[in-house]
Amino acid sequence: MSEPDGRTPGDLTRTGMALKHDREWDYELDRIKEAVEAHDATFVGLQFPEGLKRRSTAVAADLEQLFDDDITIAISGEPCYGACDLDLDLLRRSDVFVHFGHSPMKESDKIVYIPLFSNVEIEPIIESAIEELSGPDVALVTTAQHMNRFEEMVDQLEDAGFRVHTRRGDERLTHTGQVLGCNYESADVPAPEVLYVGGGKFHPLGLAMDHPEKEVIIADPVNNLVEVADPEPFLRQRYATVHAAMDAESWGVILCTKIGQRRWDIANEIVKRNENAHLITLNEITPDRMQHFNVDAFVNTGCPRITTDDGPRFPKPLLTPGEYEIAIGNRDLAELQFDTFHGTW
Amino acid sequence: MSEPDGRTPGDLTRTGMALKHDREWDYELDRIKEAVEAHDATFVGLQFPEGLKRRSTAVAADLEQLFDDDITIAISGEPCYGACDLDLDLLRRSDVFVHFGHSPMKESDKIVYIPLFSNVEIEPIIESAIEELSGPDVALVTTAQHMNRFEEMVDQLEDAGFRVHTRRGDERLTHTGQVLGCNYESADVPAPEVLYVGGGKFHPLGLAMDHPEKEVIIADPVNNLVEVADPEPFLRQRYATVHAAMDAESWGVILCTKIGQRRWDIANEIVKRNENAHLITLNEITPDRMQHFNVDAFVNTGCPRITTDDGPRFPKPLLTPGEYEIAIGNRDLAELQFDTFHGTW
Repeated sequence: MSEPDGRTPGDLTRTGMALKHDREWDYELDRIKEAVEAHDATFVGLQFPEGLKRRSTAVAADLEQLFDDDITIAISGEPCYGACDLDLDLLRRSDVFVHFGHSPMKESDKIVYIPLFSNVEIEPIIESAIEELSGPDVALVTTAQHMNRFEEMVDQLEDAGFRVHTRRGDERLTHTGQVLGCNYESADVPAPEVLYVGGGKFHPLGLAMDHPEKEVIIADPVNNLVEVADPEPFLRQRYATVHAAMDAESWGVILCTKIGQRRWDIANEIVKRNENAHLITLNEITPDRMQHFNVDAFVNTGCPRITTDDGPRFPKPLLTPGEYEIAIGNRDLAELQFDTFHGTW
Repeated sequence: MSEPDGRTPGDLTRTGMALKHDREWDYELDRIKEAVEAHDATFVGLQFPEGLKRRSTAVAADLEQLFDDDITIAISGEPCYGACDLDLDLLRRSDVFVHFGHSPMKESDKIVYIPLFSNVEIEPIIESAIEELSGPDVALVTTAQHMNRFEEMVDQLEDAGFRVHTRRGDERLTHTGQVLGCNYESADVPAPEVLYVGGGKFHPLGLAMDHPEKEVIIADPVNNLVEVADPEPFLRQRYATVHAAMDAESWGVILCTKIGQRRWDIANEIVKRNENAHLITLNEITPDRMQHFNVDAFVNTGCPRITTDDGPRFPKPLLTPGEYEIAIGNRDLAELQFDTFHGTW
């Protein structure tokens, strides 16, 4: 069964990336120039999220105008879906390394983080979302792109009579109220409803999977829509995948080598306890890289969103570590829950 | 226009990988065990070429039987197409790192190269190929998999009355008579015909592109066929691609970060001389990683086989450095030639 756009149900690929509004961003070239001068840098690396790579050569060209000819600028061509996903090879090679669009996870003197706050108005969409909220208690969360408006959001909701609950979450999250694709601790507050303000469904669906006890209302200022997040198709798919893996006799245990996604202890424990489980190290986890391995199923200890969102495209069942424990009979199916990342690395 | 197997003409993808005969390999577990003991290793990394990844977990399981429980074995999930393509992350992490199926390009005390020589008989196919050779002078080349039979091949040809010309090539090549996908120096000998012994068309087509003045006869003992390599479809495609790029105003210059594919000087020279050319660093060069970049064409300073063989699948023209010089008018179209790699890195 396919949806009209060719995606199978539950396939979130690119849902958060295809934006209807083209936004203007502040690349903070002055701050980059300062860092280059402070470090006396001759090699500057730039890393952009997938959705902004099309702007990357223009940003590089603008930067080149600011510098002498003896400065080399290189753009990372590696896929980038978060601050957990630093291009380590380019980072090593660079005197100054600029990471755009994500808030810091690893701090280093030579890394400059440029947040790229959205300039989309959020007041009208929150106004619409308020009609969907029962209140009076509501949790408020958003993404790095809209953090600069977080206080405004709180004020608007309080002015409308809501008790707004916010939380910083653990050290993986830079800001109060921020969510990541793999971490929704900022919604661990005493409110039955969560208002998510931001573009796309990637984050609110993760949020709804991680907090099935809460109702997640999406206020999307980019696509101008208000909607309740429905994690059901995903959850059904997770149950189906776990069931499919219950007969597996051999396992590939994927250890992701991205700096913010290495869960070595979890991967190692699985292979030490199961002689039919083999460790596979990999940077970018894609279906074609898994196709040659002669195992019945995979456990992915890297990004949980690869597992839940891209998993159906893999040639064999792809499970989170928690789902693996269910599949081999160590835990009950009722214990199935969303896989999250805590800490930095 | 598609060929029966769904490939477009000139698309060599996987032609050398899909083997009709299933071969047995000697993984030399004893030699690995010796290295592990000599290094007192607790972490062993294994890297297999794409076509042998399906055997990787079985090899890991066999190795685990030889060791105590305190030794961890990890398999590289990264794509691997040659000795130029070492998994540096896993190499760093490993006390002993085993690379299967390619002859050494980087020597290091902790790297063990296991050649995986083919056990396929070569005498009958050379017998057939001899009928196609004019003689008396013939160059003889083969791949790493068949190097253990090279002397037999020479003897068989000499016994049939040929003057056999062999050469070691430059330091990128380990053995006399060996070819790589990017280096055919071993065919630089005074003979108008080259006999290539080995499976698939990947190597002989590169050879024919690099040596258009010679006739390349393929003796394929794996698929049991003798054929003359025809590089024409490729050459036409290269001309078409260069033409398509002649109007390009902006360029992405890809620097491959694989250890044996970094041609930094070439990439840097291009971006320094062309203000509309921007440096993009990348490990695995694939069409989907290039799709977001807003440039008119790309120059690939990494593996030339990505350019010639996979290039047609890219969203924009993908040129070798030499082709780029033609496209921007620095060289004449008649100077078009196959891009080769020399030295190691």
